[in-house]
Amino acid sequence: MASKKAGSRDIVAAYKKQGARIETKARVKLGGKEDFSLWYTPGVGAASSHLAKHPEDARRMSVKKNSVAVISDGSAVLGLGNIGPYGALPVMEGKALIFREKAGVDAWPIVLDVHEPEEIIAVAKAIAPAFGGINLEDIAAPKCFAVERALIEALDIPVMHDDQHGTAIVVLAGLLNAAKVVKKPLAKLRVVVSGAGAAGVATAGLLAKAGVRDIVLLDRQGTIYAGRKDATGKSLAGVKAELAAHTNPRKVAGGLRDALTGADALIGVSGPGLATAADIARMAPGAIVFALANPIPEIFPDEAKRGGAVVVATGRSDFPNQINNALVFPGIFRGALDKGVRKITDKTKLAAAKALAALVAKPSADKIIPDLLDPRVVNAVANSVR
Amino acid sequence: MASKKAGSRDIVAAYKKQGARIETKARVKLGGKEDFSLWYTPGVGAASSHLAKHPEDARRMSVKKNSVAVISDGSAVLGLGNIGPYGALPVMEGKALIFREKAGVDAWPIVLDVHEPEEIIAVAKAIAPAFGGINLEDIAAPKCFAVERALIEALDIPVMHDDQHGTAIVVLAGLLNAAKVVKKPLAKLRVVVSGAGAAGVATAGLLAKAGVRDIVLLDRQGTIYAGRKDATGKSLAGVKAELAAHTNPRKVAGGLRDALTGADALIGVSGPGLATAADIARMAPGAIVFALANPIPEIFPDEAKRGGAVVVATGRSDFPNQINNALVFPGIFRGALDKGVRKITDKTKLAAAKALAALVAKPSADKIIPDLLDPRVVNAVANSVR
Repeated sequence: MASKKAGSRDIVAAYKKQGARIETKARVKLGGKEDFSLWYTPGVGAASSHLAKHPEDARRMSVKKNSVAVISDGSAVLGLGNIGPYGALPVMEGKALIFREKAGVDAWPIVLDVHEPEEIIAVAKAIAPAFGGINLEDIAAPKCFAVERALIEALDIPVMHDDQHGTAIVVLAGLLNAAKVVKKPLAKLRVVVSGAGAAGVATAGLLAKAGVRDIVLLDRQGTIYAGRKDATGKSLAGVKAELAAHTNPRKVAGGLRDALTGADALIGVSGPGLATAADIARMAPGAIVFALANPIPEIFPDEAKRGGAVVVATGRSDFPNQINNALVFPGIFRGALDKGVRKITDKTKLAAAKALAALVAKPSADKIIPDLLDPRVVNAVANSVR
Repeated sequence: MASKKAGSRDIVAAYKKQGARIETKARVKLGGKEDFSLWYTPGVGAASSHLAKHPEDARRMSVKKNSVAVISDGSAVLGLGNIGPYGALPVMEGKALIFREKAGVDAWPIVLDVHEPEEIIAVAKAIAPAFGGINLEDIAAPKCFAVERALIEALDIPVMHDDQHGTAIVVLAGLLNAAKVVKKPLAKLRVVVSGAGAAGVATAGLLAKAGVRDIVLLDRQGTIYAGRKDATGKSLAGVKAELAAHTNPRKVAGGLRDALTGADALIGVSGPGLATAADIARMAPGAIVFALANPIPEIFPDEAKRGGAVVVATGRSDFPNQINNALVFPGIFRGALDKGVRKITDKTKLAAAKALAALVAKPSADKIIPDLLDPRVVNAVANSVR
């Protein structure tokens, strides 16, 4: 603990020394008066007059061509919870850095000092004209679902809540290869998803669209199934009610242990220290365990293996099989911006997962997903956007 | 007209060929896993935890250190009027370019698809956490006054409506030197300000603070004076009522010709083709004419001189004495960011005008203001921020 504490202090000191991690850069020269006249005043007046009449040309004539707003209200930052806009800022700036370095996308961090879904929607809609896309990030469930849906409907630029779909895509990519390693068909896997927040809900949805038929989700109360009532007798509502209708065909009730009995895969997107080796031992032979909570996973790889897991993945860079959204979001927006795509469809998500998985020529227990530093990743994902 | 038309087409074609004029750039290297761990995940978690507890450190540890949002709703873009967010985008992006190239400030264009003052205020407040300053731009009067005032009160970062204060500062700088050229003390000048929008109101205010005692403003109805009523018998309200109380001590009534009779200086911040040589001939000997409407000034320099003007300035780069906000805003925000200044005070505005004027060692009729390309300008203005 003492050394971890020191590590945090070192990191904070490094950030203080560094200041900003991204900056702006001119793409035109402002050498003399002629440059100034063309790219600023009076030339800019002609561009403004034109865009007033032809706003659709903003995609060709302005930053809108290549820019993404990385928007968060800081209500669900990493595993840190609701820590507000300043807490969210380092993550959003970090994503802008990844966008630039991985995919040449001009992303700018926008952290919001408002938290009601209607307010988040209103602000994102208001600032949308200068951006070519919106990456929503670290917005708590269930409001993230309403916010994303409203923005996708209202705007003509791609909007993606990365905690949902980035996670779902990279999990599906990993699972496609993990299923090959354990020699089970994807469609026949029994998959347990622990966590019914943004990531869990989207992952369950995409796995189902990929053909997985037996998915059991758990929230804090246990497995989600049609007809479940909470302690006060209230029925499931909203997204969870929808999930209950489409998942858990065997109506498994109870907790994680009940769900894991005979399961082929556990996808942990909930929090640290969820499961033990004994829990994993209840799974079917050839168990797949993705323990994705960061930085402390639901179960550490060595313990999962003691319980019999054959393929183990985490979100961390210090174990094999790092399942991280950064494999997905740069390529998704790169592809959408290049092709003028206005909606990130389920077809795109499925294709992106398959493209990512296909980059691993010979999947093995310790290699189910491409490395974050693999230079082929962005193009493979971008090419799958349609 | 034909050649002007072709010019606009050429400019639009150049913007289409160029795409964006600014982009993002990484300030840290992402070479290997260690960089990735420090500047993205998991390191960013320590920075986020720290800023959640110490939001004041965002100025040291994030883009907030050096960034400015250039915000417009497109309601008063250049001389083009209310042309909306897409029409505004080229100007805001151009300002971001100037911020970068002149002052090393990381500015990002934010154009708003909302137009009510309360909405503009709400959005600007909501997105403020990631920015170190806000440059409001091309927002119509009178709502610009309420928007700026509310944001200055609500936020702890510098907020400046450049159409108001950038213009006021550069006009005062020019007038300080023009008064020297015609050998009249600034305090004794009779100054006519044509235009009671954002620029006119702020300019009249700053000239008064600089010691000018006889200022007459005009709006479309004529001179503004205490007790004026409009055609329907309604009295002056809002900002104009305040102006009437503090300007026009001789209660000059009537139109531009009445105001110009015996005047020493005309500041045109209204629109093209306002005055003729005959109008200027009514002014006192040694007349000063700033015709700042862009791209077509209130009166062209040769005609103003035919009317007897001794010092003539415009907003254009193809005549001597270009009075342009770009001399001001980069340095104001550079100074405010470097010094952690949270309000742009009147003292700063006066000091900036004096600093700008002082860069012209020997003012003459054709040289009252530094050149836009003068490399000393930004530092001189930045140093005056206090």
